[in-house]
Amino acid sequence: MNYDFFAPRQIHFGWDRFQEVGTLAASLGTRALIISGSRSLESNGVLEELQSLLSRAGITSEHIRTISHEPEVKDVDHVTNILQHHSHGAGDFLIGIGGGSGIDLAKACSAMITNRESETVLDYLEGVGQGLQLTEEPLPLMAIPTTAGTGSEATKNAVISSYAPAFKKSLRSPEMIPDLILCDPKLACSVPPEITARTGMDAITQLLESYISSRAQPLPQALSLQGLKLAIPALPLAVEDGSSRTARENMAHAALLSGIALANSGLGMAHGVAPPLGTHCRIPHGLACAVMLPVTLRANRSVCETQYAEIARHLDPGLTLSDAEAADAFIDQIQALNDQIGIPRTLSELGVTPEQIPDLVAGSRGNSMRGNPREIPDEELTQILQGLL
Amino acid sequence: MNYDFFAPRQIHFGWDRFQEVGTLAASLGTRALIISGSRSLESNGVLEELQSLLSRAGITSEHIRTISHEPEVKDVDHVTNILQHHSHGAGDFLIGIGGGSGIDLAKACSAMITNRESETVLDYLEGVGQGLQLTEEPLPLMAIPTTAGTGSEATKNAVISSYAPAFKKSLRSPEMIPDLILCDPKLACSVPPEITARTGMDAITQLLESYISSRAQPLPQALSLQGLKLAIPALPLAVEDGSSRTARENMAHAALLSGIALANSGLGMAHGVAPPLGTHCRIPHGLACAVMLPVTLRANRSVCETQYAEIARHLDPGLTLSDAEAADAFIDQIQALNDQIGIPRTLSELGVTPEQIPDLVAGSRGNSMRGNPREIPDEELTQILQGLL
Repeated sequence: MNYDFFAPRQIHFGWDRFQEVGTLAASLGTRALIISGSRSLESNGVLEELQSLLSRAGITSEHIRTISHEPEVKDVDHVTNILQHHSHGAGDFLIGIGGGSGIDLAKACSAMITNRESETVLDYLEGVGQGLQLTEEPLPLMAIPTTAGTGSEATKNAVISSYAPAFKKSLRSPEMIPDLILCDPKLACSVPPEITARTGMDAITQLLESYISSRAQPLPQALSLQGLKLAIPALPLAVEDGSSRTARENMAHAALLSGIALANSGLGMAHGVAPPLGTHCRIPHGLACAVMLPVTLRANRSVCETQYAEIARHLDPGLTLSDAEAADAFIDQIQALNDQIGIPRTLSELGVTPEQIPDLVAGSRGNSMRGNPREIPDEELTQILQGLL
Repeated sequence: MNYDFFAPRQIHFGWDRFQEVGTLAASLGTRALIISGSRSLESNGVLEELQSLLSRAGITSEHIRTISHEPEVKDVDHVTNILQHHSHGAGDFLIGIGGGSGIDLAKACSAMITNRESETVLDYLEGVGQGLQLTEEPLPLMAIPTTAGTGSEATKNAVISSYAPAFKKSLRSPEMIPDLILCDPKLACSVPPEITARTGMDAITQLLESYISSRAQPLPQALSLQGLKLAIPALPLAVEDGSSRTARENMAHAALLSGIALANSGLGMAHGVAPPLGTHCRIPHGLACAVMLPVTLRANRSVCETQYAEIARHLDPGLTLSDAEAADAFIDQIQALNDQIGIPRTLSELGVTPEQIPDLVAGSRGNSMRGNPREIPDEELTQILQGLL
């Protein structure tokens, strides 16, 4: 038993607790620079309410940017530039509100605004650019997730994309974990069923991949068991009835747990293949993870039977199956969940062609893939992806 | 589902990782003021090694104080005074190394050195003194637990005693959670069997009481399930063979989880009665909790049957009992654990007399007792304590 565990220092969770944002933000500073992750937060009045709640707590605020796609190198560089013109120094802090895209952009900018050894975030990303390290503490950051998915509110990395050249890489440092999380599951009620399904499956993939990861550790495993027990029944309900309070609460909590878990334990093959599926085939991250999850579980079954059985027994304490039977039943259960919420079984349904497979294989070898519990050679990964066409 | 969750930002856990103390401490400052919690850390060379490891990492250090009893108001005031004479300001940080007593003293002093509205910690304690609040951030603090028990390394309070008048009260603030935990289970190998038993039962009591607390919340419950599953079999092994690596690892991890759990969920009757058992009858904290645990489980059985059954099924996934049977079996299992490791069944074996019971009842009404899942009126508590004579 040997681990390093990093966690967000403060989590405030609860239905309608968005109303407390002003009071909570006061512990971070006096002036909020806001980055948001979806146009609908503007159209449904949430952003306006945010600024009004901050103002009532004596906090001035500026809405810097709304991003409605997964953040790219040029977005981070551009928004950091805007922030530098708007920042006054002491008392300033950032609020990232939205799904993974908005919060990742806020996290990346919070780091880039204080780390200026290079003009571009590219030079700080893992595996590309100059490999610079973050040395200065980021600007204080409050994360307000509005989808239950990436868990980005609790992780130490921000995923940044590029399409030419094509990559998705992380800016990563324990200092990038948001200082304060305000998670109000009610904010997710307006998320449409399709997005609810794929972001929810991202969270479930994270809970599972971190549990079986080669870097798995006990504390995140405890969180994953609880997250899976809540999320697996809640996700179809949240997809079916977006206003279900219990379903939204359970999914928001599970997504948060998945962020803490992955930040400490790493991930696996599904999250390894998702980045090139995004950059080469423009498949949204959660959807890519969801399609890849059952095949990832099957590919790792030979070394993870015990863990699958543990999870299955935690989900259903009355289970009287053998380890082997319980593991198989669990994989079937995840496939059935995907089917129920409308996740396609094949990549060809998402437009992937055989010609793209070599690029997908080559693009899969990042930090996530290194967490997979067994090594998947290129040849095997090629076969796995061909099997999904 | 509604909660606030506070956690230590950095945990570094592993056998022999004490060797990394210098590197880890470098993130906190350049000069360490050390408070230790046991004479044996001096005699067995651990303190000397600590200072040498710090020095090798370019960190100067001063050993301020060793305390070998549960910290009292006068200890905190005295050591804060010494610290003020030794502190130079920027770059200074505290290291608390030891069991709950040493770490609690370090935590209290880290807060008192920056909060000077009163000369005495008494005025900042809950329920006694002036009721002052901590407004200034404490000095940075690294906690190095050497017993697997209180979980003080992860909590937001420090328990401070007084014998005239008799009380045990907390200095409490989320800011008091240590900035960095270094948990090396090897350091506990020299803890004698009797102390191993009672500190271990403190951790188990915390895992259980936080799980059923009236302020219970999901994330700590996930940690408690894992902690109990590891600790219940590990404790008798650690008592029997103090050098067992697996037993010490599991107990150290479980104690850490118990600290995170109680800091967020509160406790119950066992921890409510333990303070007056300490101040009126001089019974060490862990031993008091251990004796009180089975009777606390029985007193709450009527409202906690489902939770006991949940825990029992997590401990033994093959269990086919009904909720009621599983709950009873679980209480019996805890009593059997106490018996196995030499915890007495009665308070009279620890010298408690019938005349002391009114003081014990009166002294039990603190923050811990308010977490008990049902209210225990004075009359019932009197009967419960009489039943333990």
